[in-house]
Amino acid sequence: MPQRIFPFQKGRAERPADPLESLGLKGADLSLLASLNLPVPPGFTISTYAWREAKGGRDDLPMGLRADLRDQVEALEEVTGRRFDGDRRPLLLAVRSSAKTAMPGLAESVLDVGLNGRTVEILAEELDDATFAFRSYRRLIESYAQLVFDTDPTDFEEIADEEAGEKGWTGEPASIDDWRSLIARLNAFLADELDVVMPQTPFEQLVEIVNAVFKSWRSAPAQAYRALHGIPENSGLAVTIHSMIFNERNAQSGRGRALSRDMATGRPQLTGEFQLGSGHVLRNGEHRTIDLAGALADGGSDYPADIADLDDHVRAVEAYLGDLAEVEFMIGDGELFLLQSRVGRRSASEAVRLAVEFVRDGLIDEAEALTRIDATSLDQLLHPSIQRDESFVVMARGMPASPGAATGEIVFSSDRAQAVAAEGRKVILVRHETFPEDIHGMHVSEGVLTIRGGTTSHAAVVARGIGKPCVTGAGTLRLNAATGELHAGNKVLRQGDAITIDGASGEVIEGAVTLVRPSLDGDFATLMEFADRARQMKVRTNAETPAEARAARDFGAEGIGLTRTEHMFFEGDRVRAMREMILASDENGRRAALEKLLPIQRADFVELFEIMAGLPVTIRLLDPPLHEFLPQAENDIDEAAEFLGVNVSSLRERIAALQEFNPMLGHRGCRLAISYPEIAEVQSRAIFEAAVEAGAKTGAAVTPEIMVPLVSLRRELDFVKERIDAVAAQVIEETGTKLTYRVGTMIELPRAIVRADTIAEAADFFSFGTNDLTQTVFGISRDDAGTFLSTYVREGIVERDPFQTVDVEGVGELIQIAVEKARRTKPDIELGVCGEQGGDPASIAFFAEAGLDYVSCSPFRVPIARLAAAQAAIREGRITRGGRSRR
Amino acid sequence: MPQRIFPFQKGRAERPADPLESLGLKGADLSLLASLNLPVPPGFTISTYAWREAKGGRDDLPMGLRADLRDQVEALEEVTGRRFDGDRRPLLLAVRSSAKTAMPGLAESVLDVGLNGRTVEILAEELDDATFAFRSYRRLIESYAQLVFDTDPTDFEEIADEEAGEKGWTGEPASIDDWRSLIARLNAFLADELDVVMPQTPFEQLVEIVNAVFKSWRSAPAQAYRALHGIPENSGLAVTIHSMIFNERNAQSGRGRALSRDMATGRPQLTGEFQLGSGHVLRNGEHRTIDLAGALADGGSDYPADIADLDDHVRAVEAYLGDLAEVEFMIGDGELFLLQSRVGRRSASEAVRLAVEFVRDGLIDEAEALTRIDATSLDQLLHPSIQRDESFVVMARGMPASPGAATGEIVFSSDRAQAVAAEGRKVILVRHETFPEDIHGMHVSEGVLTIRGGTTSHAAVVARGIGKPCVTGAGTLRLNAATGELHAGNKVLRQGDAITIDGASGEVIEGAVTLVRPSLDGDFATLMEFADRARQMKVRTNAETPAEARAARDFGAEGIGLTRTEHMFFEGDRVRAMREMILASDENGRRAALEKLLPIQRADFVELFEIMAGLPVTIRLLDPPLHEFLPQAENDIDEAAEFLGVNVSSLRERIAALQEFNPMLGHRGCRLAISYPEIAEVQSRAIFEAAVEAGAKTGAAVTPEIMVPLVSLRRELDFVKERIDAVAAQVIEETGTKLTYRVGTMIELPRAIVRADTIAEAADFFSFGTNDLTQTVFGISRDDAGTFLSTYVREGIVERDPFQTVDVEGVGELIQIAVEKARRTKPDIELGVCGEQGGDPASIAFFAEAGLDYVSCSPFRVPIARLAAAQAAIREGRITRGGRSRR
Repeated sequence: MPQRIFPFQKGRAERPADPLESLGLKGADLSLLASLNLPVPPGFTISTYAWREAKGGRDDLPMGLRADLRDQVEALEEVTGRRFDGDRRPLLLAVRSSAKTAMPGLAESVLDVGLNGRTVEILAEELDDATFAFRSYRRLIESYAQLVFDTDPTDFEEIADEEAGEKGWTGEPASIDDWRSLIARLNAFLADELDVVMPQTPFEQLVEIVNAVFKSWRSAPAQAYRALHGIPENSGLAVTIHSMIFNERNAQSGRGRALSRDMATGRPQLTGEFQLGSGHVLRNGEHRTIDLAGALADGGSDYPADIADLDDHVRAVEAYLGDLAEVEFMIGDGELFLLQSRVGRRSASEAVRLAVEFVRDGLIDEAEALTRIDATSLDQLLHPSIQRDESFVVMARGMPASPGAATGEIVFSSDRAQAVAAEGRKVILVRHETFPEDIHGMHVSEGVLTIRGGTTSHAAVVARGIGKPCVTGAGTLRLNAATGELHAGNKVLRQGDAITIDGASGEVIEGAVTLVRPSLDGDFATLMEFADRARQMKVRTNAETPAEARAARDFGAEGIGLTRTEHMFFEGDRVRAMREMILASDENGRRAALEKLLPIQRADFVELFEIMAGLPVTIRLLDPPLHEFLPQAENDIDEAAEFLGVNVSSLRERIAALQEFNPMLGHRGCRLAISYPEIAEVQSRAIFEAAVEAGAKTGAAVTPEIMVPLVSLRRELDFVKERIDAVAAQVIEETGTKLTYRVGTMIELPRAIVRADTIAEAADFFSFGTNDLTQTVFGISRDDAGTFLSTYVREGIVERDPFQTVDVEGVGELIQIAVEKARRTKPDIELGVCGEQGGDPASIAFFAEAGLDYVSCSPFRVPIARLAAAQAAIREGRITRGGRSRR
Repeated sequence: MPQRIFPFQKGRAERPADPLESLGLKGADLSLLASLNLPVPPGFTISTYAWREAKGGRDDLPMGLRADLRDQVEALEEVTGRRFDGDRRPLLLAVRSSAKTAMPGLAESVLDVGLNGRTVEILAEELDDATFAFRSYRRLIESYAQLVFDTDPTDFEEIADEEAGEKGWTGEPASIDDWRSLIARLNAFLADELDVVMPQTPFEQLVEIVNAVFKSWRSAPAQAYRALHGIPENSGLAVTIHSMIFNERNAQSGRGRALSRDMATGRPQLTGEFQLGSGHVLRNGEHRTIDLAGALADGGSDYPADIADLDDHVRAVEAYLGDLAEVEFMIGDGELFLLQSRVGRRSASEAVRLAVEFVRDGLIDEAEALTRIDATSLDQLLHPSIQRDESFVVMARGMPASPGAATGEIVFSSDRAQAVAAEGRKVILVRHETFPEDIHGMHVSEGVLTIRGGTTSHAAVVARGIGKPCVTGAGTLRLNAATGELHAGNKVLRQGDAITIDGASGEVIEGAVTLVRPSLDGDFATLMEFADRARQMKVRTNAETPAEARAARDFGAEGIGLTRTEHMFFEGDRVRAMREMILASDENGRRAALEKLLPIQRADFVELFEIMAGLPVTIRLLDPPLHEFLPQAENDIDEAAEFLGVNVSSLRERIAALQEFNPMLGHRGCRLAISYPEIAEVQSRAIFEAAVEAGAKTGAAVTPEIMVPLVSLRRELDFVKERIDAVAAQVIEETGTKLTYRVGTMIELPRAIVRADTIAEAADFFSFGTNDLTQTVFGISRDDAGTFLSTYVREGIVERDPFQTVDVEGVGELIQIAVEKARRTKPDIELGVCGEQGGDPASIAFFAEAGLDYVSCSPFRVPIARLAAAQAAIREGRITRGGRSRR
């Protein structure tokens, strides 16, 4: 028969093979501390085995357990020199539920078990402190009644209030008689009103409490919590019982929390604080809060406990954990006890600092340091954040679409944003939603707020790309762009009013709030070095502008994995030429317009190539449907018609003709290159000429990678590649320069997955476009998903947004099929990811496992991707090593 | 060395192993007829081997060939008793190119080879017909010059006109001297103007002609044709040479075409006709056209040839072919020769009739009869067609979107269609495109014409479903609904003008045209019996209305595979209740509106269940996004607001809120059932209550199948199924009736394919929705594909529209993956198809191969599907048998 009870005391603990499973969190921890020879109150833990014998609280305690309990109590009497229900020095116990995971609904601690009408008087005499003894007894009666009899606490409060009124005291009874009277009345209430009696025999108290703790496992809140968090019903409950520490008794008593490190520097240093005196005492102002670091420094002579001892203890715990130790301790009349130890919590920047320090201290290796950082949390370090200790008014909440906080004046149009920003004022662009023509406005704004859209709407994607804070889908706001008003309930904000958004939390805040700027200090850089040594996947960036490309280089990007050329076409002259091309009636007209774009695009590319200095640069041919370049609003159409010198009605006709029912599935991607090969040709020329020019300037050969989007048929790629190759041959002949280049394709449609083997034959590389792939695999438009995805999450139909983290079972399986098929026909094909998920740590773990060569993400996510890629490599290495050892 | 020349004569033919490859069509056929001991002119065929020796016409004739040719000519002299260039009875030859496939650009026949200045006079004397001899000689000179010297035929015409003017004849020379003068002038023209001479030695003529025939393979038209039709450049050319038949000489000569069957009955009967006399004689009115059936019946005594002999010959050919024989024959001075035989062409109805008759005659078995019918061609038999022998003006051409022809008055709106149709007048609904709210207009129209859209647009899909002719995407028409004008070039048609559309050809015709109504006679029914015996897959129908369901039963549907419940919601009160539901602010409001729909839906279902009388009926829960039920046009919105008693602006707001960027990928399918479970619940209740009611009425238990659309996650199906099961339990309890039902899902998203194994665990059946599956697998919106799919077809990037015929390599492979996965976890799961492709023969062949249990298609395609399923089963049986024999 497994052991039912495991006793512990300083330097001696019986430990099961699986402490957490058998003893729960508190029981296992006390047993651990005892085994480390650290001072703990002596006691024992009733294991989960006993709970199982009692059928998880459905049955009463098994018979044998009473005898075991009696033996343990006797042993404890021996160790403490006190006696349960004794005539002098009565033994008092604390009883605590101890599950593997904390959860609501489990029994709270029951303290001072062992007091009754007799022992309370003995304790009062022993301590010469009747108030303390009766206060403890009253607490026991109330706790016991609540746990065992399920009484309503307000009943006790009412009784106390009546007593206080009758006897004329406030707060708590003023004399021993008042205490006795109150206690008598509480017992009378139980007997008269509820027909129950709290046993006067301490051992019976103990048995009933343990029984009730077991049963609390099956309380409604506990069951609901387990269902919600997927905790098995039979995972198990233990009960830890130890002798009472009178930490609230006097000024020589107290409790506190200690850390093993100085969180500001990461260096080993006892920190934390403790409070002397009791809660009751505190209210009377008779308390002292003591800073542990200071106490340790001044030698600690006038404290009730030896701080140097505490320092030793905490360091011992840290050494054992190999991580930041956080210890809860109590002091009872000058004697120090550790009650609980755990790995200490930390902020993102503290985590980085500690991890690096631990490696310096030799406590852990680089791999361990890397796995300890939550890669997603790095985001906090790369963007400004709100000073949270200030107060502010949250007007609305939207989706956290692009991290970072920003403050500025409200503007309702991109043109206005540009005008105000040109005066050196900071603006927040507020729109129902954004369109490609808003890009110039987004660039000059501090941040973007949209009423509609989700975390993958246009605003969100662009904002993340350019590193601007963004909140989307703040649906409770009502925007009236015509009157220039933003309504939040009864509150009305106007253009020019200050507003703050937090793109990490989705909060929209009235007025300006102080922002904290991040600094990427040395520890961060060191951590990134660790990551680069560990990872196998390369990390590139998605970038269009020189600013983005430079930022990405600073963040450690190893090339560009996606340049969306269309983003280069929305500004000023460029959009004009684009529109001329779209409105041209024939190929010659289109070519004439494209010729105007050629030098502009070439210059863009030259700059990107120079910044990337020989690193790979993947440029995607024009992808969006052409109607995205045309104006939609009535007055924009009139203006554009005048500007372009065309008839308004013919412009309107062209716009109508290009309209699509489902633009996502429309005339875009390589379909444009096949309908209008001249577009692909001119773009290719710009790329090749830029490669020649940048190569000549820098002296290092540029090998551009041209990416053909939205391929579903091998023949589509063949068709476009033929044109690219022809242009390359022309440029080589014209410039007399040797030029190497690569042509590949986005894999973003299910058909391309199925045909990956044949498409690979024609491609130098594949880049998985996880955004569109997720849209087509699920049949979900990311722009429209907001209306039902929230229901899905609420109903537990999906666990997380599949646009944020790769859907491993569906999209992931298809990616694996494509990888396998592609490598079958072209073993050395280069495989990467350039969708949003390229910057998501959980997705990166999958991509590494799937064997991809690189991920590409927005500049601000490059460090996250470097870390996540390292973590994936470490995890795989461990699995592989584990696999080997098993062989 | 392979044989260069293959001689033939009646009863004796040297035949190569691969006649068609070696001898071409004409050569192989003459050799076949000769070997069947049928009368053919004696001759020989120069094989493709010789052509290959001459490098396909690039080189001159190989030396050895001259000697071979000389031997053959000598043998022919022997057989015919005539002599090449002889002093009396000169041998004349006909030379014909003979390729495996006819193609433009190849040399035409050259006749009367062997005539020269000397032999023409001998022939004139022999036949006592100088005009005939010189006419033949003139034709030879002109043919020779055109083939060998590439002369322009108009040059010869001009010379003849000059001669006629000078000599005073018209038509052709009036005397032998005039003939001699004309011939001399033609020869002078060649010598003086072109510096060439036609050889006077017949053998040299022959050699030059054969050489020129070989070279004609490489003419520009021939090359272009081969490129267009994918005929290999080296597929080969033969030359057939036989002795001349003077079929144009006198009233004892002639030519004709005979068939082995009476096409009106399919019974064995010599039919066809022949003409006596020559083309020249014809012009003088001295010709007789003789009906072969009549000639055979009256004993044929006064005809130049024995018609009974011809009957025997034709029957011999039919017996050999095992199919309708079509024979070309000539009569030369009373002697009958067969020139060519082939399997006769037939219309769709003739094909059915013949196939059934052949089986009755024991000529072929049922399987062979079934494989001989082009399943698609049956469509012609199920719809009215245009009387093609009338003349009419085609105003425009669009896509053939739904077969059948229709005539009626033009109307530009569905309301107008209803008003005019209510007066008993026939209308054609003409729209830019149709929307769900047009369904009532489509139902009352004879046919539908849209300016936009393709073969899978809303108009096309609905029209096919209800069996209305439809032409879509007639983009050259311009429709001004406001002025009520339809422009076709300069032509303007107005509301009320008559128009005719042919949904099989895509033609739009001005005015009314006579239509031919089909009748499904006994042979058709017999063929369908054959098909039902042969096929393994079941055929169901997609149907919503009782009329459709009844039509489908008449066409042999074995149940309903898809009832789109949303189609039931667009009429009158129903759309009102739908709109009330959509506008309701909470679940209670929605339930109240749904309660109004419940009895209506239940009545619909009762009727369908009764018509289907125990056959399976699959009903799909609401699928389209809710905005499809709301008005879009300004005045419709105003009207609807008044009707519904709601504020116009709040209606407008709700419409705007429901708007989607990509409705195809939006809030639809089971996503609706998850957001608003009450919709699925009320629909389920209507289905179950209807099943109970119909079961009680008919006495036969109804087992409804409920289909959950657009599932991508197992949990979606679980969620909806749980609600369906709950409603079923309620209805069972309320009615006290035992009720069996099945719950399954559409498989129409790639993710459902990948997860088919786990989804199958929760589903009784899968129905592949090939429309949406094709859209998501390709990432192509069928509504928007028109703009680029035509380019794709033109550029050869896709061979056919993937929405019409399943894309086997992409979508097909995914379907196979799903079938395999589903059967792995649930071997007895029922698998079907309910997309458009369920009625496409090529797709049905694939579905049969993939192992599906049934296809479901629109009522009018049920017979096609039955035949196609039979053909697939026969083909697979043959492959399997073939496989067995190989083992």
